[in-house]
Amino acid sequence: MTGGVTPSERLARAALTRVFEPGDERGGHWLREFGAGGLLALLTSADGGKQLAGVGARRLGGYRIRAAGADPERDLSAVAAHGGRFVCPGDTEWPSQLDDLDAAGPIGLWVRGGPDLRIWSLRSVAVVGARACTPYGAHMAATLGSGLAERGWVVTSGGAFGVDGAAHRGALAAGGATVAVLACGVDVVYPPGHTELIGRIAEQGLVVTELPPGDHPTRSRFILRNRVIAALTRGTVVVEAAYRSGSLVTARCALRLGRFTMGVPGPVTSGLSAGVHELLRGEGVLVTDAAEVVELVGEIGDLAPVRRGPVLPRDLLGPVSARVLDALPARGAADVREIARSAGTTSDEALGRLYELHSLGFVERLGDRWQLTVRVTPDAAARRGGA
Amino acid sequence: MTGGVTPSERLARAALTRVFEPGDERGGHWLREFGAGGLLALLTSADGGKQLAGVGARRLGGYRIRAAGADPERDLSAVAAHGGRFVCPGDTEWPSQLDDLDAAGPIGLWVRGGPDLRIWSLRSVAVVGARACTPYGAHMAATLGSGLAERGWVVTSGGAFGVDGAAHRGALAAGGATVAVLACGVDVVYPPGHTELIGRIAEQGLVVTELPPGDHPTRSRFILRNRVIAALTRGTVVVEAAYRSGSLVTARCALRLGRFTMGVPGPVTSGLSAGVHELLRGEGVLVTDAAEVVELVGEIGDLAPVRRGPVLPRDLLGPVSARVLDALPARGAADVREIARSAGTTSDEALGRLYELHSLGFVERLGDRWQLTVRVTPDAAARRGGA
Repeated sequence: MTGGVTPSERLARAALTRVFEPGDERGGHWLREFGAGGLLALLTSADGGKQLAGVGARRLGGYRIRAAGADPERDLSAVAAHGGRFVCPGDTEWPSQLDDLDAAGPIGLWVRGGPDLRIWSLRSVAVVGARACTPYGAHMAATLGSGLAERGWVVTSGGAFGVDGAAHRGALAAGGATVAVLACGVDVVYPPGHTELIGRIAEQGLVVTELPPGDHPTRSRFILRNRVIAALTRGTVVVEAAYRSGSLVTARCALRLGRFTMGVPGPVTSGLSAGVHELLRGEGVLVTDAAEVVELVGEIGDLAPVRRGPVLPRDLLGPVSARVLDALPARGAADVREIARSAGTTSDEALGRLYELHSLGFVERLGDRWQLTVRVTPDAAARRGGA
Repeated sequence: MTGGVTPSERLARAALTRVFEPGDERGGHWLREFGAGGLLALLTSADGGKQLAGVGARRLGGYRIRAAGADPERDLSAVAAHGGRFVCPGDTEWPSQLDDLDAAGPIGLWVRGGPDLRIWSLRSVAVVGARACTPYGAHMAATLGSGLAERGWVVTSGGAFGVDGAAHRGALAAGGATVAVLACGVDVVYPPGHTELIGRIAEQGLVVTELPPGDHPTRSRFILRNRVIAALTRGTVVVEAAYRSGSLVTARCALRLGRFTMGVPGPVTSGLSAGVHELLRGEGVLVTDAAEVVELVGEIGDLAPVRRGPVLPRDLLGPVSARVLDALPARGAADVREIARSAGTTSDEALGRLYELHSLGFVERLGDRWQLTVRVTPDAAARRGGA
């Protein structure tokens, strides 16, 4: 899990998440120039400020005050107490597609939940939309969430009321995988009405944020959170969005990053579909169900392992993943409880591993059951071609 | 109006509309080979059948029986009694874009209504969709119909229940121009529930059909009628259509002919939007209001005269059109009744001419009023460029 990241590098990056707001490109450029430890040292030394060019004295002063106050060991313990961890570039769990954000990319991510963020993200789709959605929007988000989960895809969203919550719940209800990307610390539950939902996501899925523990959401944090949702996933589906809504920020960011960008149409008479229709009149692709989403984002062939990321040989899997894989029957399918029982894990743990194994191309989901991927051997391919 | 068509050519074409069903390409090829008079002579002479190759004896026999029974003079009188006429290729009123249909194009069109079909068609848009539409579909069709009429565009549809009727009514209600393309004779009212509507369209607009008087609609006539709607207009908008519906036939025909093809989205949960969404996932363009339709079909600049068709100098206008044009105030706008009064015509007549003048670029419609087109003189353009 720790890969090539030294303990001091991890501590420094954790501290820097207290210094720079999400998406602060100045911080990103310095980080490249000086490294995390070097940058933190410059920010906290008496005369280090001289080397930090490109910002006014006042802004630099703010950075230095926050750097002096940072206590990354306390933050790491606080998050660990919530069963969390801090993942940063260099970790094997780091989702390398976030590097597409360049200097605006996250310094690191605070993560709660068992599954491997990198592997889950390989086959993930964002479903986002209006907080104050209509019953139609909630229905479509929940239907997409469960339909994507049933097809083995991870449903990523922002944990908000409305479309986000419906998408997460749809995935959870289908016994599926879901990731909530928050605009606050992993220990801060926002909105408070989603305490239970976000707790359930942390158990069955992943809760992820750039912000250190205790930090609260602000308007700009909500907006900047959206670039992480767009970058972390292979595509973004917008379900109900008014003109100039935050979900359209996510969609435009996804377009900029070359991700698939989709929208669910609705009645023209609904202002909450106006933003989606605007997207669909541009570069967005109209989708009406999960099958159409998967057809697009899984274009390289839904059974093939995803190009990006490690395609591990079976004997390089971690011990728990290997046990879960061994627990699948040689022929036919089994449900999560059967697999968990025979692998000696909890159902949530087994489910997390199954989605990882799905991302890596080892298994596939059929309704509520899982089976080994049918691999086309060269012989079988030749027979097919000759028929 | 009669252009280069001889009376015997007109009579022969009128007779041939009794012989060949709409879209019969065999008839179209013979028509090219022998001319209308020649073909009719071959079909009615004792041994003329020998020269008519490419069909079986039975089918040829059917053509010959129908040719022998044709009485074009009676048909022309019957239609004239309804205030109608027969328009055919070579007439100045013939809409030359129908020639895009090649051998499947109409032999001629039976027409009721005052306006010039060719000029009206230059700025026309088809609005088509489900008969059994939802209240949402009816609302959207009526809104588009009136919105297009208010922007000076002619609304063409099939005169059917549901979306078609709502689009026609929307245009009529806005004091606008509308064309109904029927799948039966101009003297046959189908559906019977639309007697009043189709009568009103014949007064304020145009009723058009390939079928001779007295002919009734059949399933294949409905389907083949759609190619005329697609070819006659600059674009087709589909409002609510189930999978495999007749409106999608019109849309696919429009695509094939290189016309703009558009769809109005709706709730994914409505089966009546499924066909539209299928279209929008292909080559169709999503539109949500009349302004977006006009933006697309009027791409060459809404104030500029349309490229296709005659751009007449003012002194080549017919006497009534010239009088209507003279009735417009030099500055500001006037409504149809004021213009009709000062031109000495009825309001319906004035309206028809105003839409013709709009197609030709002389006038523009602003809400319920009409004004002379503001022409950018070279001087004014230079001043604008220099500002």
